[in-house]
This record gives sequence, structure tokens and C-alpha cells, in this order.
Amino acid sequence: MAKYVYLFEEGRADMKYLLGGKGAGLAEMSRIGLPVPPGFTISTEACKEYLKRGKEILKELEGDVMAALRKVEEKTGKKFGDKENPLLVSVRSGAAISMPGMMDTILNLGLNDETVQGVLKNTDDERFSYDSYRRFIQMFGNVVMGISHDKFEAIIERYKESVGVKYDPEVDAATWKEVIKDYKELVKKEVGREFPDDPMEQLWMAIEAVFASWNNERAKVYRKINNIPDDLCTAVNVQSMVFGNMGDDSGTGVAFTRNPSTGEKEIYGEFLVNAQGEDVVAGIRTPEPIKNLKDKLPQVYEQFVNVCNTLEKHYRDVQDIEFTVERGKLYLLQTRTAKRTAAAAVKIAVDMEREGIITKEEAVKRIDPDQIEQLLHRQIDPEAKVNVLAKGLPASPGAASGKVVFNPDEAKELGEQGERVILVRPETSPDDIHGLFAAMGVLTSRGGMTSHAAVVARGMGKPCVAGCEVLKIDLENEFFEVEGRKFNKLDIITIDGSKGLVIEGEAPMIEPKLSDEFRTILSWADEISRLEVWANADTPEDAAKAREFGAKGIGLCRTEHMFMQEERLPVVQEMIMASTEKERKVALDKLLPMQRGDFYGIFKAMNGYPVTIRLLDPPLHEFLPKERELLEELNKLDPEKDRDRVGEINKVLAKVRALQEANPMLGFRGCRLGVLYPEISKMQVRAIIEAAVQLKKEGYDAIPDIMIPVVGLKKEMEYFDKLVREVADEIIKESGVKLEYKVGTMIELPRAALTADEIAEHAEFFSFGTNDLTQTTFGYSRDDAEAKFLFAYIEKHLLDENPFEVLDQRGVGKLMKMAVELGRSTRHDLQIGICGEHGGEPKSVKFCHTIGLNYVSCSPYRVPVARIAAAHAVIEEKEG
Amino acid sequence: MAKYVYLFEEGRADMKYLLGGKGAGLAEMSRIGLPVPPGFTISTEACKEYLKRGKEILKELEGDVMAALRKVEEKTGKKFGDKENPLLVSVRSGAAISMPGMMDTILNLGLNDETVQGVLKNTDDERFSYDSYRRFIQMFGNVVMGISHDKFEAIIERYKESVGVKYDPEVDAATWKEVIKDYKELVKKEVGREFPDDPMEQLWMAIEAVFASWNNERAKVYRKINNIPDDLCTAVNVQSMVFGNMGDDSGTGVAFTRNPSTGEKEIYGEFLVNAQGEDVVAGIRTPEPIKNLKDKLPQVYEQFVNVCNTLEKHYRDVQDIEFTVERGKLYLLQTRTAKRTAAAAVKIAVDMEREGIITKEEAVKRIDPDQIEQLLHRQIDPEAKVNVLAKGLPASPGAASGKVVFNPDEAKELGEQGERVILVRPETSPDDIHGLFAAMGVLTSRGGMTSHAAVVARGMGKPCVAGCEVLKIDLENEFFEVEGRKFNKLDIITIDGSKGLVIEGEAPMIEPKLSDEFRTILSWADEISRLEVWANADTPEDAAKAREFGAKGIGLCRTEHMFMQEERLPVVQEMIMASTEKERKVALDKLLPMQRGDFYGIFKAMNGYPVTIRLLDPPLHEFLPKERELLEELNKLDPEKDRDRVGEINKVLAKVRALQEANPMLGFRGCRLGVLYPEISKMQVRAIIEAAVQLKKEGYDAIPDIMIPVVGLKKEMEYFDKLVREVADEIIKESGVKLEYKVGTMIELPRAALTADEIAEHAEFFSFGTNDLTQTTFGYSRDDAEAKFLFAYIEKHLLDENPFEVLDQRGVGKLMKMAVELGRSTRHDLQIGICGEHGGEPKSVKFCHTIGLNYVSCSPYRVPVARIAAAHAVIEEKEG
Repeated sequence: MAKYVYLFEEGRADMKYLLGGKGAGLAEMSRIGLPVPPGFTISTEACKEYLKRGKEILKELEGDVMAALRKVEEKTGKKFGDKENPLLVSVRSGAAISMPGMMDTILNLGLNDETVQGVLKNTDDERFSYDSYRRFIQMFGNVVMGISHDKFEAIIERYKESVGVKYDPEVDAATWKEVIKDYKELVKKEVGREFPDDPMEQLWMAIEAVFASWNNERAKVYRKINNIPDDLCTAVNVQSMVFGNMGDDSGTGVAFTRNPSTGEKEIYGEFLVNAQGEDVVAGIRTPEPIKNLKDKLPQVYEQFVNVCNTLEKHYRDVQDIEFTVERGKLYLLQTRTAKRTAAAAVKIAVDMEREGIITKEEAVKRIDPDQIEQLLHRQIDPEAKVNVLAKGLPASPGAASGKVVFNPDEAKELGEQGERVILVRPETSPDDIHGLFAAMGVLTSRGGMTSHAAVVARGMGKPCVAGCEVLKIDLENEFFEVEGRKFNKLDIITIDGSKGLVIEGEAPMIEPKLSDEFRTILSWADEISRLEVWANADTPEDAAKAREFGAKGIGLCRTEHMFMQEERLPVVQEMIMASTEKERKVALDKLLPMQRGDFYGIFKAMNGYPVTIRLLDPPLHEFLPKERELLEELNKLDPEKDRDRVGEINKVLAKVRALQEANPMLGFRGCRLGVLYPEISKMQVRAIIEAAVQLKKEGYDAIPDIMIPVVGLKKEMEYFDKLVREVADEIIKESGVKLEYKVGTMIELPRAALTADEIAEHAEFFSFGTNDLTQTTFGYSRDDAEAKFLFAYIEKHLLDENPFEVLDQRGVGKLMKMAVELGRSTRHDLQIGICGEHGGEPKSVKFCHTIGLNYVSCSPYRVPVARIAAAHAVIEEKEG
Repeated sequence: MAKYVYLFEEGRADMKYLLGGKGAGLAEMSRIGLPVPPGFTISTEACKEYLKRGKEILKELEGDVMAALRKVEEKTGKKFGDKENPLLVSVRSGAAISMPGMMDTILNLGLNDETVQGVLKNTDDERFSYDSYRRFIQMFGNVVMGISHDKFEAIIERYKESVGVKYDPEVDAATWKEVIKDYKELVKKEVGREFPDDPMEQLWMAIEAVFASWNNERAKVYRKINNIPDDLCTAVNVQSMVFGNMGDDSGTGVAFTRNPSTGEKEIYGEFLVNAQGEDVVAGIRTPEPIKNLKDKLPQVYEQFVNVCNTLEKHYRDVQDIEFTVERGKLYLLQTRTAKRTAAAAVKIAVDMEREGIITKEEAVKRIDPDQIEQLLHRQIDPEAKVNVLAKGLPASPGAASGKVVFNPDEAKELGEQGERVILVRPETSPDDIHGLFAAMGVLTSRGGMTSHAAVVARGMGKPCVAGCEVLKIDLENEFFEVEGRKFNKLDIITIDGSKGLVIEGEAPMIEPKLSDEFRTILSWADEISRLEVWANADTPEDAAKAREFGAKGIGLCRTEHMFMQEERLPVVQEMIMASTEKERKVALDKLLPMQRGDFYGIFKAMNGYPVTIRLLDPPLHEFLPKERELLEELNKLDPEKDRDRVGEINKVLAKVRALQEANPMLGFRGCRLGVLYPEISKMQVRAIIEAAVQLKKEGYDAIPDIMIPVVGLKKEMEYFDKLVREVADEIIKESGVKLEYKVGTMIELPRAALTADEIAEHAEFFSFGTNDLTQTTFGYSRDDAEAKFLFAYIEKHLLDENPFEVLDQRGVGKLMKMAVELGRSTRHDLQIGICGEHGGEPKSVKFCHTIGLNYVSCSPYRVPVARIAAAHAVIEEKEG
């Protein structure tokens, strides 16, 4: 027969899935002899069975609960429902994974008109006794019977007014008695039955309410959002009550064994004298720092410090502890692993390794790669004095300054003109996406952490402050008011999405830096990892940043960004406008020294590390003016007076139109350009190799990997392998230096992955271009999809995640796995990496490890994230 | 030791790869006792060895050839190089696959100043003897020694002028002797050596010339174009000469055992009295029909008829025979399987089966699916009187009428306005592609069958007449002249690309019809096939045509074409412009009865067969006016006077802009529309099911397969499966009739193929949309790729074929194979078809058979092609 009920002393920390997190913590503390008020846990299995049977309590369970209750009575010397010495209990839910939305807590269960007399007798405190009783009815009435909290509060308010007091603690016993009467009538009126007097009935109602709360709407939504399985279910903790509100030698508090914000090794927390848990929440009195306890209750403090040390050593991690002191006696009500900021996590992990508590591997494992991204965002300079206007929800991390804009169309327009704008809206909808795209950040006055603005901003990696309700936004007249001040369109503000702050003007920002502890953790991570982390960088500055953050190479250097530079664009346009190969070569000859200079700088910055340079990729029309712009200029010109310019524009216009494509993403781009205009590719190869040769001569070590984009055919790769080698080998031979280089390709088309065995015959390396591979595999044009339907797909749960952020392992990943296996079947030492944005996303990095890539390459700022994720992949693999 | 030389009687018909086609034919005829002048074949292996050794003749080969020559001397009683009774031989190349471009024929080899005396003695005909001698020098000088034919002809012309005769046969022996002297001097002058007198030297030079000709440029190019392996090599046939020019009881001819044009069972061919083979080619005298032989040489004729019957029965196929009659004795010089028109092929196959010569399966196998397409093009009514202006090359089959246009831009413009135009150019280049796209057909005055215009037109399936050199085209003034008449821009002409004709005005056309024999062959094909053939049809008329051509279902009915109809477009636009679901529903309610009517008609036409209806697929902007058109109209309006219309246009313009996408092919289309606007999908499902129910009530059998486009996610399929069933089942239930339907999906995205196992959980059928699957797998937007680089890729041999015409088996095919296996792993009875254009292309059809599809679906006119190809797939599979 299944065992459904566990006395605390019967459980253990590792029984989390059976007893829930809270239950397992209470059990572990009991087991190791810490002062925990006696109680028992009804397992998640019981809840599962209850829900399976259509909300019917198992007979066995009834017996088990009774037996356990008897044991608790024995231990406390009290009796449940007894009018002389009544046992009161708390009933709390507790799932394996901490989860808001479920039924929370009922205290003082077991009270009725008779047992309250027993409490009175034991405490000799009438006010306390009736206060406890009314608290119980209120909580039970609210959470079990579903009566609005406000209705209870209204009754108290009425009495407080009539007796002329302001705060609850001032209410006397007689008044509480009246309140209790009115509460009971309220219950009868609201639910059509008497408030249950029988403690056993109270207990079962409470247990069933916990069970049932597993499936309430808020809990279900939370699970769906956070990918928590629906069949975990919750446990129920039934525990004998202790009271922190029995006088000045009593109290209640919460503490962390180390500072969860900075990671400093110090007990950190708050304490409220003569109070119960919910009083802390009510915020009537301000809690004191925990260190004050040292003076007030030195023995208790000493004991508590010992408990903290014991728990931290026992759990080998920082603990978040709830405790109560009843008449000078310390009781522990909960312990759990403490949540912490990324900075704290890093410091704690390094410190604990140094204290000999955990190993290096454990230290690395403690760092959540998703979380440390916080440390890599631009931040508002903490030293700077700023004027905080308002506080909202920290909905998407990072900080940004810009001009206030209310209209998404205008945001787009200004954004395209290069203006930095902050989109300010009461809330956003899919119709505003183009504005969100264009803005540096988003500020809303309505909506929570899961509102449209919040979700989309996080998706786009932009800061967002949501639900900033103090903002009064007037969309029609385009201003907002806060604290009586008015901010108009184009006024400058700063938002801090990590803290939820709205700041006046442009706040000074600081670039992220790596702390010493962070560097230490990263170096430990590298010792563990098999996957190398490279970076995507197009400039010497980015390359230097990447190297600072620990990149072991450049996985993607895009040459088109160099083409876009202001002084070069006219030459590039000259090349495109050329109508013969000869004309084209004239322009290319001008570009050659510029490109050579670019590569020289990057090779130098990456001295000794490989630099993967991709030949020109985008469709040529991207380098020409837009048709609309040309037409607009044309309209303004006089055909007679401006004859020359008109002729010129018409020529460009003709070329722009000739280059127009229905779907440029699938058009004349990538290596297809080089097949038709091999002289462009040859110029680029020449620039790369000449720069590398020059550096070699100067004593540097340049390692060029030349990457051919958008290859889909074996014969394309064959063609370019030959083209590159012909140009490169001649230059190297003439120079007399020894220079090694590789020729390889992006794998960014399904066909390239499907025929990777053939392509590898001519490619020395592969680099997965997962942005384009995702576009072609899904048939999604990223811009179109995100603007038109992708967020709706996520909202409707057709997609769990945006596949442009988190690699789609089932589809795109399957192609990657095939390509790795096929490619290495014809070239066993094929070097394989990834240079799509997924290369910096932890889940995707782990997948890349699993399928055997050699490296991931991501933006410089994500290099540390990827280094941690790469180490986690090895650790998780070991753990199986 | 390898055997390199085979006497004719040692070979067999099945030794084609060793002896070449000609050699195997001569061997087989010798073996079965037909009168073949004795000779031998030097095998292709000898050629291979010769080329491998860098053009060095093997020692063994020399001995073998001498031995074989001795045997031929024995049989003929003549002696090679003998001055009394000299043996003369012909030397001919002959590869396994007939191949123009290689060295052809040398006759009368063995002649020199001495042996010519022997000929004279034997024939007692001085003119014949010296004519033969000069013919030999001329042929040998040309093909072995590389001297231009014209230079020899110039010498003859000079003599003819000096003796005052017009034709060669009038030249007397004395003059030929002079010619021979001059020929020899010409040779000496041109190549710096004497003409070889030694017959053995002549023979070896000729043999080496044949070997070497395997690698001449024309032959290499031909092999590349026709995918003939380079290592097949050619055999050399050395055969004792017989002479058709020995008087009126001699002659030479070519005949087919049946009419190769119509297939009629009659000996068909031509005969020239007192002539050698090359005289026929020279065209000086007109050959007579072969039946005239009956009167002239009745015994020979009778013998020839018997030979024809013997050969046809022996080879079990129509033969193309070359023969010579020397002084009343019949000699066979070649037999091979006759080339024939598609119509003849069909008739011959059916007749031969009925005559018991071949089986049904062989009859089907004899029909080339690529060739029968000829029978399915529109043709100029053969009964109609037309005025043929000129004849060019039949470069791409089919016929088309239209207005003459010379400028590709103008062709595009007029084409977009719905005009039918014929693009007329001296030649075309990749820059003209947009004009080729827009035109109904192409006419060029320069270029051959492999010119740009010809290749591109064949690729596009449009008629082309190329190299029509009599046309004088004046591009600048936009007219062409032919036979003194002038045709201006916009004059109407007709071109017949199957025959190479240019016709004045609009010629009356006839739609293709199936002959009785064709129907018979197709029914036999169906008996053999495992694959069914369905058709793509959007209208009842197309459906009827498909059924007439033997389609067993509709594999793709596109609903968007219905939306485009003139009277519906405003309602569709109303639906798109709707800003609320309610407004949208009003428009949808208007569309419902129209759509229902469409489906009613198609179901009725396909009574008893499944009809696969695809829900709305294209991006919505395709149904709205183009931005440019709206702007143009706006520019013409007065903001005050036309205020209403201006407002209207601005509204549409806003929507058009909101729907604009960077890459619409990868954007908001297909099932993505139905996810955001489920009411559109629901209306379509309602229309389908209501139409089907109605027909059921009327006693017809409607079988709807509802197809969801552009599915890439399991959850999309799940969503639509539910949506369709909810609407459909309610209608069916209410109607009280029994109606079965299927819900399935296009597989047109790589991700759908990669996750086909999941998708099949919710899909009852798959249909490969290989047009889009090719676009996404290759990363080619079809329009962009074909206009910008695809033809260049084919020209540069980076691609062998256009993957939009011939399915790419290595890439796209691999995905298809995966999808079939994965799909059937979760749903074993999954119905799988293909509805991309590849469904009518023979090689692709065979691939579909191989990977186990249930059906292919193609345009109605290609259904017969696919039926034959499907049968071939089974036959080829059996043959292994």
C-alpha cells in the first residue's frame, strides 16, 4: 500500500518531488535535529490520486492523516480540537518547484468557539486569543471558501471607525469578538452555510483546497509559461503552530545565510518583534535588520547564527530561512536555496569553492548562464546621481535613453532616421510591433511581466519597464504626467528595465566589466568545456572586446559592414553600377586597399587566434539608394536645369530596378554573386591574404579562415575552393612567408546540410548560419514573421519559443546533426562551428555541444554566457 | 590477353558497349546470315587503351588487326594493297550511343596509284576507278589530315569550269586523273607531307584518327550536354567496300521497316540508282521512293523486303537500314533501331503488341515519356491553310500566336497588361529574361538548338523558333523583313516551335487529343503502374480535361484562383480591409456561396474520385492593388473634388503598406493566415463540405481531401485538424448524409519534412509541394533565381538541370524520402502524393515511385506523360 503521509522526521531533502520543496526542507531540518515545530506532509502522490479520482479523498489517506496527527499531538502534548490544550496547525501547499498562484497558507487551524478558550487558558491573553481566531476565520474564509479579502477588511474597518482606532494592534479583545460574529455571518451570507466549527472538517476542507488549487487558472498559466509539467502536483504541509506575536520575546523573520544581492558572507535579513508572518507583509511596521536581534535576544541570535552555519554547510549552498521566535524559543519554518542576483551568484560560488564547501565544477554549475546576462548589459552608472521619476515592473533587462514617442509609426520613422526613441504606451499590441522594433526601449503604464510589451521586448533583447501605473499617458495630446510634471513628445528619458526605473533625461551609462570572481568562474568553466567559444566581430574594436571576454577566435567577420562605411559606399556603388568586368575592376582596385586595412586591424587584434572572414553576402541592391528616395529626389529636380543629376539618378534607378527581387533573402546573394562576378570574390581574397602576409612579416600570427556564404551545391564549394586557392597561393608564394589558411562554408541552407558529405569534400570547415537556416527550414522571413505572426504563434502556444532566439532542435537541429555526421563522414577532421545568434543562447549552446561542434561563435557580450553554458553542457552530460 | 578485334561474325547485338552500335549491328546481321560485306570491329577497349597511353597504338592490336584483315581477304578473295585484285575498305567510327561530332566515314581506303589499276582491271571502268580514287583522297585528306573540304571542291570546280561541265558525274576519267594530281599537291602544301601511298599506313592513320576523334571538342561538348560518360570510347569498323555506283543495276539507299513519321506498317525509304552514300547527301539527284525498286530490280526488292521482315522480327523493333546494291547484289551496311515521332512510336508499339512481336510491357517501355509530350502541346490545325513566312530551327516545341515585340522591356509591359506577344530578337541574352518570361514564344534569327533563347524557352516550356536566318531584323526601327515583306511591331505572327515555322497572322490551333492507340498504351501503362496519376485543376473545365486524360483524382485545387475572379475580388478585398472579425465575417458570408459553387462544380466533374482542396495560400496583399497603381491614381485625383475616392485609396494604401513584406514567400501566408484569421479557413471548410453534402444528396460521390498549406509545426496541423473537423462534422451531422473526408497537409517546408512523424499524428495525407520545397531547400526564390542566376549556373555546369523542372533527388529528394519514412512511422496508412510541377516530369515521377508515394499530381496535359513514366518506373525497378 502506498504511503501518502510523512512525518517531518520521516522525510529527507532529496524527496522534493514527493514532499514538495517546503516539505522536504522541513523534513531535512527535523532530521538533522534543528528546532522545527512538529508536523507532517501529505505527498504529491496523494494530490495526484485526488485529482485523478475527480476530487475524491482516498480512504487510506484519511487514516494516515489521523495517525500522523496523533503523533504530532504526542510530540506537542496538545490535542487537536481539545478545549483545554488545543493543538493548532498551519496548512500550506508546497510543490517540487516553487510556484506562485496556488493556495498559500492557513494559520491557526483548529480554532472554534470552544478551542479558543483553551488558547486563552494557555496564554492568558484574551486579545491574542481572539485576534488569532478572527485571523483564522478570515484566512480560511478567503482561501478555502473563496470570499473576498476586502469583505473581511471592511468589517474590521467599520469596527475600527466605531471604536476610534487606526491600527489592528489597537483593537481590543471585545471588539475582535464582535468582528468574529460578523465574520461568521458574512460567511453564511456569502456561501450559504455556517462556518465549519469542527476542526477535522476544517482540516479536510483546507487539504482539499490545497489539492484543488493545483489546477486553478493562475497556477495553470504559470506552469504553461514556465514549462512546468502539469502532473507534478502539490504536497500539503500540516504543522503545529508557533506564535511570534506572544510579546516582545517573540517575533518572526526571514534571513539569508549570505547577502543575496552582493554575495557578501554575512547573515542578511529582517526581523519583526511580536508579530506573525502576515504582519510583515501588511507593512504596518518596518522590520529591523536581523543583526539587531543580537542585542534584543542574544541567545536566540547566537542560536540562529549556528543554525545558519549548519544549514549552509548541510545544504552546501546559501539558504533562505523563515523562522519564528515564540517566547524566546527559536523555531524554523522553512529553508530553501536562496535566490540571488547574478553578481551574488558569481561571488558566492567562488567564495564557497575557496572555503572548501563546493568543487570548481559545482561552482560553475551554480551559475545560471541566462542570469549572468544581466552582468553583461549596459547599466546606468551606479555612481551617477539620477532623478527617478517612477518605478514600474522590471520587465526586460538593460537600460536605454531616448526621445519619448507615443505613436509606433512615428517611432519607426524617427528610428529609421537614426534617432534613439523610447516608445511610451498605456500597453502595446501586435499592431505596434514596428514601433517596438524601431525603439531603443519600451515603457508601459499597464500590464505585467507577461504583457505583450514585456514578452516582445524580452524577445528582442530590449529594455522594458511595464505596468508603471503612476504614469498618466495622454495619447491624443502626446504627453505623460508623473508626480505633477508633464513630459512631452521628444523629451528625453532613460529607462532601466533591470530595476523597473523611469529616469529623467539621459542617465550616464557604463559598459559591462568582468569582476575578478567572474573571470575566475569563467576560467574554471573553460577548464571543463569541450566546446570553444568564439565571437562574431566585424571591427578591430569588437574583436578586442571579444578577446577581453575570452573569445578564442572570430567565428564570423562580415565584410558587408565594411562596404557600408560612408566613405566607401560610393566606390561600392561604382562597382555595382559597372556595366563591364573592366569597369568593375577599376572600382574593385579602389576597394582593395580599404578592405586590406580592415582585415589587417582584425587579424592584429586576434593575433594567434583564427579569424573567419565571410565573403560578401547581401544582395547588391542593399548598397544602392532606395527606389523611393530616388523618385523623391527626381520629383524635386528640374529636368532642364538639373539635367546631369537627373540622368545620373535615372541610371541608378534603372540598376535599382534591375536588381529588384520578389524575395531577396532567397535571391541573388551570397556566393551566387561571386559565381557571376568572380572578380569581387578575388578582390576580397586578395585583401585577406595580403593583410595576413603583411602581419606575418611584422611578426604577428594571422590565421585566416575564408568562409563562402549561402553554399547549397557541392560544385559551388568546388568552384570557390579553387578560386580562393588560386589567388591566395600565388600571393603567399610571391611573399615568401609561410601562411596557413582554411577555406570553408556557412551551412545556412537545408540543401547544404542535406548534402554536407559532398560539400565537405571541398570545405575545410563548416559554420552553421542558424539565422538563415532557421528562416529557410521554417519558411519564415525573420522580419516578416516577427512583425506579422510569430508573437501570435507564441501567444497561442503553437510555438514554445521564438526559433530565432532558441534553436529549434527538432527541425533545424536535426539538419545540423545530419550535417555534422555527413560532413565528418567524408572529412573526419572537419572543423564545425555555429555563428548564428543561437551561438550565445545557453540551451542552443548545450545542443551544439551534444552534436559535437568544435566551437560556438556569438556577439562579444554573450561570450561569457556561452562559456558558462559550454561548461554546463559537459557537467550535464556527465550527470546523464 | 585482352581481345581487341572482332570479326563481324564473332560479335553479337548485345555487345554494343564493346563494339559500338554500328559494329554490333553489323555483327548481328552477319551472325544471322544476312548479306554483309566482310569486315571487323576494333573494340572500344582498344580506343580506351590508346587514349590512356597518350595516343599510342598497342602492339597486340597491330597483330590482331593484321590477322583480321587476312580473314577478310580470304572471304572476299581480294588482297589489301594488291595491284591485281585489291581489297578496298571503309573505316567508320561507332560508339555505343549514337553521337554526332566524331570522325565519320572514310571510303575506298587502300587505293593508291598502283591499286587503282587493280580496280580498273576488275571493273573495266576507268571513270569509276579514278572517281573512287579521288573520292578517297578527298575524304582521307579532309577527315584524317584535316584539310578543309572546300579546298578540294575548289580544285574540282576549276576543272569542271575548264572542261565545261556542271555536275561531277559528267567529269571524265582523264580529268579525275588531273584532279588527283592536284589533290596530292594540295595535301603536300597543306600538311607538309606526301599523301600516304602505303595502304597499311592509310589504315593505321584512319584508325588513329577515329580513336582521337573521341576527344575532339564537338564530341566532348555533345557528351557533356547529353550526359554521356567520357570513358565509353568509340569502336572502329573496317569493312570491305561494295559499290553502288557501278551502273544502273547498282545503287544505295536508306529504309525504315515501318513509317517513322506515322507508324504505318510499310517499308519506307529512299533509293538512288548508280550512286554511293555521299551522293545522296550531296543532293545532286533526288532519290526515289523505295517502292520503285520493285519495278527496277524486282529480285533485289523482294530480297530486301524479306531482310526487313527478318530484321524487324529479329530485333523486335522497327529498323533503320542502310544498304547498297552492287551489280544486282544486295549488301547491308547498317541496321539500327529507328528513331520515330511520338505518334509513330505509339502506333508501332500498339501494332507490334497486336502482331505478337512484343508484350504489353515492352510496348509501354518503348514510349519515351519525354517524347510524348509533343502529342500534348497545342498544335496548329493541320487542316488549316497558313502562310508560312520562314523556316528556322524547331528549338522548343509548341505553337503560339501573338504581337511582334522587339524590346524585352516592352514585352514585359504588354505581357503584364494581358497582351499575348512574341519576342523577336536576333538572339537573346540573360538580360532579356524578363521579356522571355512575359512572351508567349520567342523567335530569333541567330543561334542554334543550344542558343540562349532555345535553352531558356525549353526550360520555360514555351515555343521557340531559333536561327531563322532569312529574317532581317531591324531592332532600332522595330521591324523585320522576310521575303521582301516588312512586319512591324505589334503585327501578329504565329510560331510553330515543333516544326520551326514562322507563320503570318494568327493560325488556328487545335487542342491535343488522345488517339485510340495512345489510349491503349496508357491503359496498359496503368495496368503496370503502382503509382496513381492525379491532376492539378482549379476549375470544373480543367477537372474534366484531367479526367479525360486519365487522372484518378485532383491532387491540388487552388482556392486562391477562385478569389481572383473579377466579380469576387471586391468581396475578397472587403474581407482583407475589414478591421474587426465581425466586419470580416460579413464579407466571408458573401464569399461562402460563391466558393460552394466552385467546389460543387469540381466535385461533380470528379464524381467518385478524390478532390484535394488547398485552403487559401498566398499572402493577402496579392489580392489588393499594387502600391504603385494606387499612388498613380492618387496623383491624378483632386484632393477636394475627389475627396471620397482619395480617402478610400488612402485606406487601401495603408493596408497595402501594412501587409508589405521583405520576403512574402517566407511571410504571412498559408496556414499562418488561418491561425490569425480562423474565420477565413472556417468559411472555406464550410463551402467544401456543404457542396459535398449537396452532391451526396443528389446521388453523386464527392470525396473531399482538405489540405492545409505551409504547415511547419505539429501544433499547426493539430490546430487545423480540430478546426476543420469541428466545422465539417457539424454540417455532416445536420445533413444526415454519410460523407467521408480527409484532413492533411502540403509538405513544402524543410521543417515539415524533418518532423513528418509528429505532423502525421494529425494529418491523414501528405502532398509534397515541391515547388516551395525546392525554393526553401535551395534558398532560391524561383522568379528571382531564374531571372538572375539560375541559367548562368546551368551554363557554367554548377547545376545540371533546373531544379524547378527536374526534382533534385540528392537534396529535396532526401527530405522527401525522410518525410515518407517518418510520416508512415506514426501513421502506416498515410496517403502521400506530390502536387508540385515535378509531378509531371518523368525522372521525378520515377523517383516518386521509388520512395513509395501513392500518387503524382500534375497539370492535366501532363497526365499521360506521368502515366507512362509511372509504368516505366515499375519496369525499370523489375529490371533492377
